[in-house]
Amino acid sequence: MDEIIARLRVLEDRAEIAELIAQYGPIVDSGSGQHLRNIWTADGKYVVGSEFEMKGESIPDLTNISGHQEYMRNGCGHILSAPTITIEGDNAKAVNHSMLVLRDGERWVVERLSANRWTFVRTEKGWRVTLRENDLLNGNKSARALLEPESST
Amino acid sequence: MDEIIARLRVLEDRAEIAELIAQYGPIVDSGSGQHLRNIWTADGKYVVGSEFEMKGESIPDLTNISGHQEYMRNGCGHILSAPTITIEGDNAKAVNHSMLVLRDGERWVVERLSANRWTFVRTEKGWRVTLRENDLLNGNKSARALLEPESST
Amino acid sequence: MDEIIARLRVLEDRAEIAELIAQYGPIVDSGSGQHLRNIWTADGKYVVGSEFEMKGESIPDLTNISGHQEYMRNGCGHILSAPTITIEGDNAKAVNHSMLVLRDGERWVVERLSANRWTFVRTEKGWRVTLRENDLLNGNKSARALLEPESST
Repeated sequence: MDEIIARLRVLEDRAEIAELIAQYGPIVDSGSGQHLRNIWTADGKYVVGSEFEMKGESIPDLTNISGHQEYMRNGCGHILSAPTITIEGDNAKAVNHSMLVLRDGERWVVERLSANRWTFVRTEKGWRVTLRENDLLNGNKSARALLEPESST
Repeated sequence: MDEIIARLRVLEDRAEIAELIAQYGPIVDSGSGQHLRNIWTADGKYVVGSEFEMKGESIPDLTNISGHQEYMRNGCGHILSAPTITIEGDNAKAVNHSMLVLRDGERWVVERLSANRWTFVRTEKGWRVTLRENDLLNGNKSARALLEPESST
Repeated sequence: MDEIIARLRVLEDRAEIAELIAQYGPIVDSGSGQHLRNIWTADGKYVVGSEFEMKGESIPDLTNISGHQEYMRNGCGHILSAPTITIEGDNAKAVNHSMLVLRDGERWVVERLSANRWTFVRTEKGWRVTLRENDLLNGNKSARALLEPESST
C-alpha cells in the first residue's frame, strides 16, 4: 500500500508542477499579478538573462510594469510549452520554452522566444517556484545552457 | 482505500480533460470535424467573441466552413497551450491560449491569438465540453477576462 | 487492488510518454543530441516527410548537422504542442504539432510548422519512440493525414 501511495504522490507532484507553470501565462496576460504569489515562494527569484531580476514579494508587481501594461493594451500572449519535469523528493526542476506573442497590425508576431529553467520546492502550501531562469534564444550560449538535460546519457 | 481511489480519480479527470483539449487541434487541422462530437456535449456551445457562436450538434460542421477549408488547403495549425485545469466534482474549468498558425509563402504566421475558457461536465461517456469561450487577444478586455484566475490570492 | 495498480500504471504511462515528447525540444535546442538515445529505440526511425529519414543510432547526430548548428547559432526553439496520447498495453501513439521558431532580426519567425505522429513501445528501460513521422503543414494531404484521429466517432 505504501508503494501505491508513493507512486500516486509522484503523479500528483507532476500534475501540480505542470499546473503551476500553466498558470503563469493566463495570470500575466490577464493582468492578475497578485496571483503570482501562489506560484513563487516569498523569497523566490525570477531572473531574465542580464535584463532584470525580480525578487520575492515584488514579483506580483510584474504586471504593473509600464511595458507589460502596453503589451496587454496591444494584445499579448505568454505561451509556455509543455515542460519536462524532474522530481527528487521535495525538490523539482522543469525546463520549457516560452514565447511572447504580440499583436502587430492584423496579425501577431513572436516578440520574444526564451529558454526557461524552473526550480521548485515543496512547501506547506504545496509546490512553489524558488527560481525561474529565463534567457532569450538569440544565439546566446547562456540560453541554450538552460535547456541542457541534467540526466546522464 | 477510498482516499486512494479518490486521489486516483482526480488524476484521471485531469488527464482526460487535458486529452480532450489536446485533441481539438489535430481534429480540426485534419478536417475530421465529426470527431468534435466526442469533445462537446450535444447541446454544448462554442462562442468565438462576437464573431460567431456554434451550438450543439452543428459544431462538427466547423471543418466544412469554406474559410476553414481554405486554411487547410493553405497549411494551418491550431496550436493550443497546456491548460490550467480546476475540477470540482462533476464540473471542471480550464484556461489556455490558442494560436492559428497559417502558411504565408515560405513561412508561417500567427493569424490569430486567442484566450480560451473551457467549461466541462462529467457525462456517462466521460468528460465533455459544455462551453468553450474564445476571444481574440487584440487588446480587448473581454479576452483578458477569460484568462483571469478564479481562485483567491 | 489489482485494478488500482492498473489505473495507476495507465497514468504513469501517459506521464512518461508526455515527458519523452517534452524532452525533444530542449535536447535539440541545447545541442545535446546524445540524449536522443533515451528517446528513440536503437532501431527507431525519424521520418520527415520526403525530406529525410534518420535511422536508429544515427538519430543523436541530428544536432551535429550543419543546418541545425546554424539554427542554434542564430537562436531557435523547437516548440511542441501538448500531445493527444493513446495507449494499448505495451504500445502507444501520440499526435501533436511542432514549430521551429527561428530568430530573424529583432524578432522570431515560424520557419516550419509540422504535423507529428509518434509510435512508442514499452521496453525494459521504459517507453521509447519506434517511429516519429513529421510532415510540413503546407497544404499537403500527407501532413493532415498524420493528425487524423484513429478512434471511431
